[in-house]
Amino acid sequence: MLATSVILSGCTQTNDKSSEQHQAEPPNIIFMIGDGMGFEYISAYRYAMSEPGAGTLAATPFDDLLLGAATTYPDDTTWVTDSASSATALATGVKSYNGAIGVDADKHPQQSIMELARANGWYTGAVSTVQVNHATPASFFTHHPSRKMYEAIADSLATPVQPGVWSFDVLLGGGYRYFNRDDKNWLPELEQQGMQVITEFEQLATTTTTPLLGLFAPVALPAAIDDQPRLATMTENALRLLSAKQQEQQQPFALMIEGSQIDWCGHANDIACTVHEMHDFAQAIDVVRAFQQQHPNTLLIITADHSTGGLTLGQGGEYAWYSEKVMGITASLEVMTRDLLELPRDQWRGYLQPRLNLDVTEDEWQQILAVEIPAAARGRDRQYAIGKVLAAVISTHTRTGWTTTGHTAVDVPVMAIGPGSEAFRGYQDNTDIGKALLKLIR
Amino acid sequence: MLATSVILSGCTQTNDKSSEQHQAEPPNIIFMIGDGMGFEYISAYRYAMSEPGAGTLAATPFDDLLLGAATTYPDDTTWVTDSASSATALATGVKSYNGAIGVDADKHPQQSIMELARANGWYTGAVSTVQVNHATPASFFTHHPSRKMYEAIADSLATPVQPGVWSFDVLLGGGYRYFNRDDKNWLPELEQQGMQVITEFEQLATTTTTPLLGLFAPVALPAAIDDQPRLATMTENALRLLSAKQQEQQQPFALMIEGSQIDWCGHANDIACTVHEMHDFAQAIDVVRAFQQQHPNTLLIITADHSTGGLTLGQGGEYAWYSEKVMGITASLEVMTRDLLELPRDQWRGYLQPRLNLDVTEDEWQQILAVEIPAAARGRDRQYAIGKVLAAVISTHTRTGWTTTGHTAVDVPVMAIGPGSEAFRGYQDNTDIGKALLKLIR
Ligand SMILES: [Zn+2]
Ligand SMILES: [Zn+2]
Repeated sequence: MLATSVILSGCTQTNDKSSEQHQAEPPNIIFMIGDGMGFEYISAYRYAMSEPGAGTLAATPFDDLLLGAATTYPDDTTWVTDSASSATALATGVKSYNGAIGVDADKHPQQSIMELARANGWYTGAVSTVQVNHATPASFFTHHPSRKMYEAIADSLATPVQPGVWSFDVLLGGGYRYFNRDDKNWLPELEQQGMQVITEFEQLATTTTTPLLGLFAPVALPAAIDDQPRLATMTENALRLLSAKQQEQQQPFALMIEGSQIDWCGHANDIACTVHEMHDFAQAIDVVRAFQQQHPNTLLIITADHSTGGLTLGQGGEYAWYSEKVMGITASLEVMTRDLLELPRDQWRGYLQPRLNLDVTEDEWQQILAVEIPAAARGRDRQYAIGKVLAAVISTHTRTGWTTTGHTAVDVPVMAIGPGSEAFRGYQDNTDIGKALLKLIR
Repeated sequence: MLATSVILSGCTQTNDKSSEQHQAEPPNIIFMIGDGMGFEYISAYRYAMSEPGAGTLAATPFDDLLLGAATTYPDDTTWVTDSASSATALATGVKSYNGAIGVDADKHPQQSIMELARANGWYTGAVSTVQVNHATPASFFTHHPSRKMYEAIADSLATPVQPGVWSFDVLLGGGYRYFNRDDKNWLPELEQQGMQVITEFEQLATTTTTPLLGLFAPVALPAAIDDQPRLATMTENALRLLSAKQQEQQQPFALMIEGSQIDWCGHANDIACTVHEMHDFAQAIDVVRAFQQQHPNTLLIITADHSTGGLTLGQGGEYAWYSEKVMGITASLEVMTRDLLELPRDQWRGYLQPRLNLDVTEDEWQQILAVEIPAAARGRDRQYAIGKVLAAVISTHTRTGWTTTGHTAVDVPVMAIGPGSEAFRGYQDNTDIGKALLKLIR
């Protein structure tokens, strides 16, 4: 540092020219959010991809990007944030209460980086593996007092800001149930107004027009472990469409990409699901890195809104985390528990054995087969009853630790590369990230 | 980055001069190790020092030092390291098996940064809040196939490398039981040979001669929560003595400072103990920062050997971590369980209430008062039986999560400032830290 500052003072002119140049051409901003992706998730992913005892670790796209860490606490009575409050901090630079979508503690709308970018003539977009009106994307484009107002958020996203112009150029993810409702079907209306709407994932690669709304599932997309990778594909196409726009009119773009279900697997305390979501997110980072190398005037920033589940790699006193056992599991708890509810109990063992691939003890089988599903339980709660027992068995065998089905207050990693990335070094607050991005767009 | 490299190429001469200057005067190295101090520990400390709802966070000495993170896996059949293997990696740059003290996988001694520093004429020292022959300090000065060889390690430390010269100039901590044994009392012998030996903490401030061995407890010093802060005082005096040496003959020094009991509190799943150890460590960092500001040719590097206990700030589904409740606890589980074993059970509640300061429910009191101590349990195991129940009650009330009484494989923070600190940016392996330090000494 000392050496650098000495040099800078001796080369003021060069330095000034260089910053003028940067100011003249603001960079594209690609903001990737691993929902729930605490440091532990990156550790888990790296070890899961590596061969135990090989003496080296597998390379991951996270390896050369780490710059610092961020605190995530909300403006609330607790240190533990939810996704809405933290996404609002990341999108607007303003602390708010848990549940807030783009509004401050007084429920006043706060300008997001997407809105400022739009006001400056930039292109904008978002990609998510859950419904596009979920807390994280919602906080970048809309303002609502509660994340639970799913229909109102969908309405905000669907409402043009002026005829034929929406707050985004590209919006990809799940959630068509919220746009095609009994009381309101936005989809034909949007198409009439000039929006390209697609609902089949296969249509994405051949779509060439914007604005584009891609809704590939009623609510969330399937988990990565149960499906093919999809975040990388959505990312690739969002970048293709936004950079095509950019070719037409020399304006930068701002794109938010969410690895949404890292968090959901964390809530379910489902380590195999978690690692596969991390892989999905990592593959999307690879796509963005390749784009960033070809378009160096692009800032890539990656962080998490919070950590989920209290994940740790060590459990029950043993000094071990069995990554191969984690990688031997072939389905999410979500799918396994849904399927089990359709099967008679005498078929459970035969169903689970090839999916868990663990040396489940007889005692553990007894626990699994005898699991009580409360008579009052409905829908997801019936799955949770089974999932809880399976998660405990998986945790014991793989030595994966979880402490909660909610979020935790631990700091999250901050990674970045490209122009402006220096702003994200060291410890910072999640609002500092939003503020620095707003400054970069201004 | 781009701007900087452009400038560098235009100012080659200045840059070269500057690096020559650095090479001519190698920096002091102060290596601080928070044993068990994963990222979660820093999050816990920061929130514990802060006022919930105040809208800002308390400043901590960690805030402006974070540069990256390190993987900690051993050369073993597991991803989870112990303190010996990781200290060996940090001290020698070489991966080894769990239990290894300064030796590689084939049990061959590996040169440590302290030994290389010594060979180059530097002064050396170490400070620990546990016995000085414990895994971490031992790996910086000795070579043994097992960390359990406490007496052999003490013998190595006590044996002069030549008449009147030892491997260290200052060694402060606990452990006089290992130096004053039935079969061997090193202490009078050491004094005869020219070593200053002190066993009272109060003697430290007035000691002016080196080499100095300060052993202030039979084994470990008391936990910070049960005692006055002591790492800062030991650090201050170690720096005073080493910089006095440095004044005599212009040679740098290398000093290792261990916040040893962060790990012990983690093993006990004792969150109040943990936060107070973090404060003790933080106060020592303040001392080093002040020294570093006065002596800028000093590299301060701070990391952890691993994380312990699977600490997270969130438990049981609730979105909260009650830092004020943590700060209301006034004694360690170690002290509380030791005292309880001396008391009739009808006095337990009266003893615990003013120490826990929690709204313990009647159900929980019943659990505590009915705790079974296995008839076969001896010594510490009798304390553990009670400690386990108390830790569970504290975890529920404060929403602190723990997943193990052992270590975990999650990555740990890397912080540094001063000449050479740039080497520690981003993700790295713990061996990379040792290697970079060896390079700096060479
Ligand atoms: Zn979230
Ligand atoms: Zn340790």
